[in-house]
Formats: sequence, C-alpha cells, structure tokens
Amino acid sequence: MHRYRSHTCAQLRKSDEGTTARLSGWVHRVRDHGGLLFIDMRDHYGMTQIVADPDSPAFKVAETVRGEWVIRVDGKVKARTPETVNANMPTGEIELYADEIEVLSTAKELPLPVFGEPDYPEDIRLKYRFLDLRRDTLHRNIVQRTKIIADMRRRMTDVGFTEYSTPILTASSPEGARDFLVPSRIHQGKFFALPQAPQQYKQLLMVAGFDRYFQIAPCFRDEDPRADRLPGEFYQLDLEMSFVTQEDVWTTMEPVIRGVFEEFANGKPVTQTFQRIPYDTALRRYGSDKPDLRNPIEMQAVSEHFAGSGFKVFANILANDPKAEVWAIPARTGGSRAFCDRMNAWAQQQGQPGLGYIFWRKEGEAIEGAGPLAKNIGPERTEAVRTQLGLGDGDACFFVAGDPQKFYRFAGEARTRAGEELNLVDRDRYELAWIVDFPFFEWNEEEKKVDFAHNPFSMPQGGMEALENQDPLTIKAYQYDLVCNGFEIASGSIRNQSPELMVKAFETVGLSKADVEERFGGLYRAFQYGAPPHGGMAAGVDRIIMLLVGAKNLREITLFPMNQQAQDLLMGAPSEALPAQLRELGVRVIPQKKDE
Amino acid sequence: MHRYRSHTCAQLRKSDEGTTARLSGWVHRVRDHGGLLFIDMRDHYGMTQIVADPDSPAFKVAETVRGEWVIRVDGKVKARTPETVNANMPTGEIELYADEIEVLSTAKELPLPVFGEPDYPEDIRLKYRFLDLRRDTLHRNIVQRTKIIADMRRRMTDVGFTEYSTPILTASSPEGARDFLVPSRIHQGKFFALPQAPQQYKQLLMVAGFDRYFQIAPCFRDEDPRADRLPGEFYQLDLEMSFVTQEDVWTTMEPVIRGVFEEFANGKPVTQTFQRIPYDTALRRYGSDKPDLRNPIEMQAVSEHFAGSGFKVFANILANDPKAEVWAIPARTGGSRAFCDRMNAWAQQQGQPGLGYIFWRKEGEAIEGAGPLAKNIGPERTEAVRTQLGLGDGDACFFVAGDPQKFYRFAGEARTRAGEELNLVDRDRYELAWIVDFPFFEWNEEEKKVDFAHNPFSMPQGGMEALENQDPLTIKAYQYDLVCNGFEIASGSIRNQSPELMVKAFETVGLSKADVEERFGGLYRAFQYGAPPHGGMAAGVDRIIMLLVGAKNLREITLFPMNQQAQDLLMGAPSEALPAQLRELGVRVIPQKKDE
Repeated sequence: MHRYRSHTCAQLRKSDEGTTARLSGWVHRVRDHGGLLFIDMRDHYGMTQIVADPDSPAFKVAETVRGEWVIRVDGKVKARTPETVNANMPTGEIELYADEIEVLSTAKELPLPVFGEPDYPEDIRLKYRFLDLRRDTLHRNIVQRTKIIADMRRRMTDVGFTEYSTPILTASSPEGARDFLVPSRIHQGKFFALPQAPQQYKQLLMVAGFDRYFQIAPCFRDEDPRADRLPGEFYQLDLEMSFVTQEDVWTTMEPVIRGVFEEFANGKPVTQTFQRIPYDTALRRYGSDKPDLRNPIEMQAVSEHFAGSGFKVFANILANDPKAEVWAIPARTGGSRAFCDRMNAWAQQQGQPGLGYIFWRKEGEAIEGAGPLAKNIGPERTEAVRTQLGLGDGDACFFVAGDPQKFYRFAGEARTRAGEELNLVDRDRYELAWIVDFPFFEWNEEEKKVDFAHNPFSMPQGGMEALENQDPLTIKAYQYDLVCNGFEIASGSIRNQSPELMVKAFETVGLSKADVEERFGGLYRAFQYGAPPHGGMAAGVDRIIMLLVGAKNLREITLFPMNQQAQDLLMGAPSEALPAQLRELGVRVIPQKKDE
Repeated sequence: MHRYRSHTCAQLRKSDEGTTARLSGWVHRVRDHGGLLFIDMRDHYGMTQIVADPDSPAFKVAETVRGEWVIRVDGKVKARTPETVNANMPTGEIELYADEIEVLSTAKELPLPVFGEPDYPEDIRLKYRFLDLRRDTLHRNIVQRTKIIADMRRRMTDVGFTEYSTPILTASSPEGARDFLVPSRIHQGKFFALPQAPQQYKQLLMVAGFDRYFQIAPCFRDEDPRADRLPGEFYQLDLEMSFVTQEDVWTTMEPVIRGVFEEFANGKPVTQTFQRIPYDTALRRYGSDKPDLRNPIEMQAVSEHFAGSGFKVFANILANDPKAEVWAIPARTGGSRAFCDRMNAWAQQQGQPGLGYIFWRKEGEAIEGAGPLAKNIGPERTEAVRTQLGLGDGDACFFVAGDPQKFYRFAGEARTRAGEELNLVDRDRYELAWIVDFPFFEWNEEEKKVDFAHNPFSMPQGGMEALENQDPLTIKAYQYDLVCNGFEIASGSIRNQSPELMVKAFETVGLSKADVEERFGGLYRAFQYGAPPHGGMAAGVDRIIMLLVGAKNLREITLFPMNQQAQDLLMGAPSEALPAQLRELGVRVIPQKKDE
C-alpha cells in the first residue's frame, strides 16, 4: 500500500464497502458521540468521515488529535446506515473505521479557525494565509480561479493564439501609472522597470512577424492602494493580432469571452450577441462608458418638451446654453410620490439641486402625470414625455438638465439607483457589450490643452486626413472596451503602426518627434522597418474571476495578496535590505524624517 | 473580402487554382526574371510566391517594393508548371498573379538582413530584435519554444496538476543566489525582492491544503553573466505534490518529461525507462553528477591490480593514502599509441601530471597490452585489468590515481573526451536518468565547517535519528536530479516539513532556531500548523528547449533576451531614473567614481 494514501478524501464510495483504505489529510473536526470518535478528515479533494471506536487500536491516538493536525488513517470502509447517510457529501454513504492512525504533523493552537470559517480580521488571515487558504470558500475560489485561467488558455489556443512570455525586467514605460523600479547591479545608477503591461512587447511581436499572440500576463503598477486594485501585481489576458480590423478582434474574442463566462456562470444567462454601443451613445443612454445592462433603464433626451415650457428652471437652462439638454431617466414601477421624493433626497445628498420628476397614475380611463413638474409644463407636454418614453400607470420619470458633459455621470448614477431601488436589475445574469468609438483626444481642463484620451498607441479613425483637418476633440479612435454588469473587463484598440501618424498624433498633444523617440523608442524604431496593421486587447483576469465567483474583494480570489498597506504579511515583505546588498546596487536609502 | 487577407501565406494550394485571393505579409525577396517580378511574400505561417507581370496594374507598385515592406496583394491563383513546382514549400504548387498591390508599411534600409540569415553581430541582432525574430531559424525556435511550453502545460494538467501563479513581488530569499531588489515607495527604505524560485510559496501551497501544484514560473537571479545563463529572468517548470514519496515524484514526472521529449525529439530516440543512479555511483562510474549517458564509457575502480605493482607511482599513492584508488577509463577502439598520446597531452594541458594508459593489440593468437604502464605492471596484471573491463584488440584504457574526491571531476572529463574523440557518443538521442541520493551536507573546506550540500529544504534520509547519530557527511537527502545528455534538466526533493528536524538540520551547519525563523519565517511558521509530507521538483524550461531545438545559446531560444552585459538593447534598459522617481522611492544613487 502507498506510504500515505490509497485514496483521496473524496474517493471512497459505497462500492468500496468492506475494503481496506488508507487516507491522509487534515483533521477538520473531531466529535465525541457517546464514546465513538468521529473525525472529519479533509484534503484538497474532499472530506471523509473517520470513525474510531474504543475497541480499535487507533482509539488512543484518535483521542489526542486536534483540528488541523495532519494524520494518516488505515481502516475498513463501512456503509453508513440509511439515516446517517449525508447526501451533501460525495463520500457521504460511507465511513472509514480506523484501525491505525499515524500523526504526520501536529498543529499549535490555531490563530485562525479553519472549520466553520468565522469572520476574522484581514491582517490575521493574511499573516496565516496558509490556514486561511484551507477555508472552504477561499479554497474553492482559488480552485475556480485556476480553472478559469486554464479555460482562457484553452479557448485562446483553440482559436489559433499562441502564448508568448514577454520580459519582466524591462524598461520604464510611460503608460500612465507609476513603475516599479529595479536597480541594476552591473550598471550602477541605472534601473530596470517591471512592465505595467506587455503593450510594447506584444506590438513588437507583431512587427517581428508573429501573429495571434496571447499571454496570461503579470502586470505591475506602483499605485496607491485602492479598494478595487491590489497593490503590486495583477494579471491580464493580453492578446494581439496582425492584419486585422477591430471587427476581427471583436468576432474572435466574443466567443472566447462568452465561452469562459458560460463555462463558469453556474447556469446564469450570458449575453449571446454582444451589443456594440458607441461611446457617445453609452454616455447618452446609460450615463456611463461601462453601463450595467442588467438595468433596463435607457435614458433619452426630452429637451423639446421643456424648451419654452412653464418649468422655468429647465426652460431657462435650455434658453441660455446652446449645449444644454434635458435628459429623462424613465423609472418603470417607480410611480409613487414616496419613491420620487426618496430619489430627490438622494440627489440632494449627492450635492445636486434635486431631481425633477413626473409620475403617472390612472385617473378613471386616463393616465395622468402628477407632481410639481407635471403641473408646471402642463398636461400636453407631460403626455408627450410619457408617450416618447412609453411609460404608463405606476411609472415615474426623473429629469436632469444642463450641459450633458457635466451631468451625464450623475444621470448615470441616478439610473443605477432607480434600477436597483425598484428591483429592475436582474442580478443573476451576465450582460456583456462592446463600447466602441472612444474619443482619441480629450480636453485637459487643468492644463488647458488637448491630451490623449486613452492611449497614444491607438489608431485614430480617419488617419492622417483626420489628424490634419478635423477638430481633434471630434476624432474617434479604433478603441473599444468590453463591459460586463457595470465593469470594464477588457480594453483594446487597433494600433497606430505608422511612424508618420504617430508623430502627427503626438504633435497634436504638444509633443515632438523627439518625445516619441524617447518614450517609445523601441516601438517607433520598429515601425520603420515594415510594421503590419495590428490590434488587440487586454482583459482583466482578476475582475473576470471576481464576477464569476461573486467575490467583492480581490483578496478573496488571490492566493497570496498583499494587504491594503502594500505589505506581504506572510513573507514579511517589503523588508530592509542588507547594507552590502545596497552597496552592490550602488543605491542608498534616504534617511526618513521622524515626523513623516 | 477581408480588409487584409482571405488566406495566410501558407494556405493556397493547387485546388485553389482559378480563385481570387488576398494575402498580406512581408516582402521576403524580389526577383526580376526577364521582366516578370517574383515576390516571395512571407507571414507568420509561411510563404507564397507572388508574380507581377508588366501588363498587370500591380506592376508599377511591384517595382517599388523592397525587402521587409509589408504589402497586401490581390490576385489570381495559378498552378505552376510542373518544372517550376517547389516541393519544399506547402504552397509550392501555385503562384499568385497580382492584380493589385497595396503598400501597408515601408521599411528603411535594413540594419540586419532577414533573407538568407547571414551571420551578424549579436548586439545588432538584439537592438533590432524585431528583424532578427523574422529570420527563419529564430522564428522557428521561438514557435517551437511556445509549443514545448504548451505541451508541458497540457501534460501536467493531464496528470492532475493545477497551475497556480505565485507572487513576483515578494521577500528577499536566502536561496543562494543574489536577489533583484525592488524599492517600496509606500514603505520607504524597505525592499521587495523578485523570487529566485517559487520554492517557499509552493511549499506554502501544500501546507495550505492544495495538491499537485505546477507553474511555468518566472525566476530571477541577479548573477554575473555566464555563457549558459541569461542575465535576469528564466523559466522553470515548477511542481510540488502532497502526501508523496520521492518514488511518486519520479513515476509521475517520468512520463511527462519523456512525453515532452518524444513529442519534440524529431524522431530521435528517447530513454524509455529512466535509470535511477545514486549520486555516489554516478561519480564513480561517470565522474559527474550529470553524466552524458550517450557516452557508453563506464569507469571502474582497478586499485587491486596496481597495489604493490611495479608501477611505482600508483603503487605508492595507494600505499600512502588509505582513501586513494585507481580508476580505469576504458576506451574501446582507442587502441593506438597516437590516440593515447593525444589524450595524455590533453591531460597535461588540463594541469594534470598525465594520463597513464594501456592499449591492447593482437599478437598472433594472443591479445597483448602495450605501453609503458603495461610493461611496469607486467602481463598478468595487465591481463587482469583487460578481463575486468572486458576490453579487446584495438581498445585502450586510461588510469587516474589518488583520492577520488579530488580526481573524479577530471576523470569524468577524460571519459567525455575519450568518448567524443572516438565517436563513441551517439549524438542523435536523448538519454535521461535520475540521479538520486544526493548528500545532505558537504564539507566547506574554506570555512572548515559542514554546510548544506544543496538546499536546506530537503528531508534528510533517516530523519532525526540520522541527524542525531550519524556522521553528517554520510547522510543522504531525499534529493534528486534529472539529467539529459550531460545536463541537469531538473532538480527536486522531498521536503523537510518538520519544524524540529529543520531546527536540528540548521544546528548541524552552525545555525540557530533564530536563523531558521529569520531566513524561512513564513515556511517555518506554517510547518507548525499541520504540514503534509510533500515534495516536488523544478525543471529548467530553457535548457530543455535548447536540447530539443539543438540550440547552443540561450539567446537563440529567447524572445527578447538581454545581452551578456545584462542590457536590453531593444528597449534601452536599464536606464537612468528620473530624480522625482527616486525621491518618491526614498533612494539615492551613490555617485560613481570615474575610474570604476
């Protein structure tokens, strides 16, 4: 028999009755039932109930074992009586009657209980992560994580992608966030940087003549801790294709992403055909470039019904600002004064003047609008609004007015709140869509200049012609996001692979050819020696896993995360370096002021 | 039709004759054959011959294109005449007659030719890596690399392993080599380290209750450049299993490794059942713990034939040192004075006094030993040596004498040289074997103390009993290597998961419990809360790929390697950091002395 086990703790079945088995695993729980000792024994695969009766030679040892000890048990497989069968456990029809128990490892008093998974302070969970990871929920999340990533790999391979690993010790990159730096020992005074993303390398791969690259890529950004981002490293499903249009990227990746979602959605519906929603439309319809499409509310402009109306606040706004509009946020089933007042109060908490509303109810045969706003604009305009939005008895509608650039975000939040408060959002589904045609440039109000809206690598729609003749703020990029349930889960673009276009685009934001060379030297040089049209995207692996396992916190889907203070409490990182190490690296720590 | 291509450059066949096709790719070569222009057009997948005849509207553009431009070609597929069919190309039965050519990207004068792959200085190849990677040999090596790694992943998954990614920003580890450090911005004066290997994390995973972990793991060692190691990062197929003996690791991994080799061996034979050779035996038989088993020479001790013999040099050595032995290096077909003298001269070049030898030839019916050594020991002893080694007419044997600890390495080199010079080595095969039972401790002559021979994580054979009662230098570890054709390709062990044994082992090398806690705090703590017996290994991915593609240099199988001076010439790393970056990190560069 094997030194440690003939079966895992998930394998024994009724058909094994009467055989001898050897199991190894952790003591999950010990119960004393009138002299008989029951040990729930656990390993990676599952759980088996061990029974030690006082006549067994194993009993003496069984009496000593405690939670989280590691033991080996030899015993006889016996069927449970029908009333003790546990249908929730794959091994629930049997028990193992112990003949011999060997203690493989004891455990000191546990700083963190495994059984029952009681809530515990996060820093203890992180310091004793090896215990935390034994807890069922986290253990299952991590297993699920590995399966999701393996499934991504398989699907990418199935559609002709090849996984290439790109360097981790590389050059500082100007992608926006802060780099982690690594001092070079051999070239003192110089530094490597950890990649914020393999963006330049994957584009170089295309220029190098490869095609359909992907990578489950570790990425590094030295950002201040945020609730939705782990300090340090995170993973992207990164991909790039040559000789493609954005349409190719969408049609290639849609089945992959849908497939991954369907595989792990646990039966929840997943969007079959992803809508392609232009960025401008997304803002107007949902007030967000990452709309939650489980929320059925779609906003509409209703300016005409308020222009010159008796509701002077809106009428004046429209009259005084040519950019001003009135947007409607229709709220089916929200047609009570109590709900509308609640929304209005919430808006005021958000620092808004309030949220105008109309609600409709049946009066005899007719449906009539109610509330102060309806009174001000009169029944005809009220009815026109109702008809345009297709609302009826028991519904409400909220209104915001002004420059949409300034209010769209708030309107989007009102839409979200109304949908959630009215239970219009079907939480048990995954709604995916492409947001397309992102603006290439944006206005930097602080510096009073034009900036790249997203990334300078993207190809502007209209090419050189647009860059030369069009108002930069109206130029779109071949740039797209994939959104799911209100989160951006991927972002990509067709790349600007023309050196001339690259220089021209940089000029528009006030940078020179020399800046291009300094910031993207490797790539800019490469584009001068035969660069194929190419594009791709990067999907946030951690975010997708969170959505699929229903976790709210990144640390619930990550093996060995740092805490919110960017410390690894388990391994004790970061830590002080030895003076000799620093001497070798040619760097010195600047002494800290005490009051800092 | 698709914007860029209806087919790849590897797809068109005779059956496509008469159809219209669109291809995109790089201009590999342009030839002018009496007015007709032939363009070899290349993409990731293959090559297609484009023909532009002077009547075609595409001709004018075709005349302008140069090597490595990227073009799109629309044209008619025509069958080649039988005499122009190229059987070496999958598309060799057709040509594409261009109707339209669009230049997608031009190329400046090439600093590095792609066509023909002429030798070029390595620094130019690295600076223009995107051109270098288009060259056929490197392109194929990289594609092969990705396939080998994908195959490893698949096979590991098939035998029940799960891939887990472990942190890259972690704690400084005392594994032997030098760490790369990463200054922490949030905790100024402290540093993360990049992992030299995920050793501690994979063991923590086992303690956390997972099982059968693997990872294609990036590893980082800040070592001085060496021919056989890239500066910076390299990859390991890293794995760990719970509740296993070393036998389990071998029987699990042997089919995986054999499978990978067979898949990519290109028909060369691969060892079917790996020998398990104890470390001591390997040294005695091959003079190396990573023997090349394609070399059939096996050394033997032949001391008895020289003790008290007329060959005074050896006889005296044996008489004066109880540790002394005489080893024989049998060299079949080496029985000529010229060869034996050549070996002797080589040995002297190595700083050895020489290499004694006997060679045998037929004299009438008898086989007689020749050479000065044979004369000195006389015909009886000479015949006894020949019989023991099973040598015959035309064979030779070399001898070394002294303390085997001091000469075994040289004897191994002589074995290698004799095998290679005599063409006894069958180069076209992969000979794999396990080297087992490595010593746990070794004598550190410099510091006059006992040290860990390999790694302190390994389980000593005999456990506490051995540590307490045995001469440490005789204790073996459950530690093993996998060797192939003279290279160590993997190394592993059963781990010491007992806190008491760990402390005891450290005491033996003069370290305290406090040292254990300081150096392996996370792991040592974990072992106190129920640690399963576990073990595993790590295989050198880069080395395996080199063996399988027949590359001699790591840069021939690596996408974006650094040069031997640890610089990334393509991206320009390492580079100087901005003063603001360093201020944020709280570090300062120590000014360099000019003469350094």
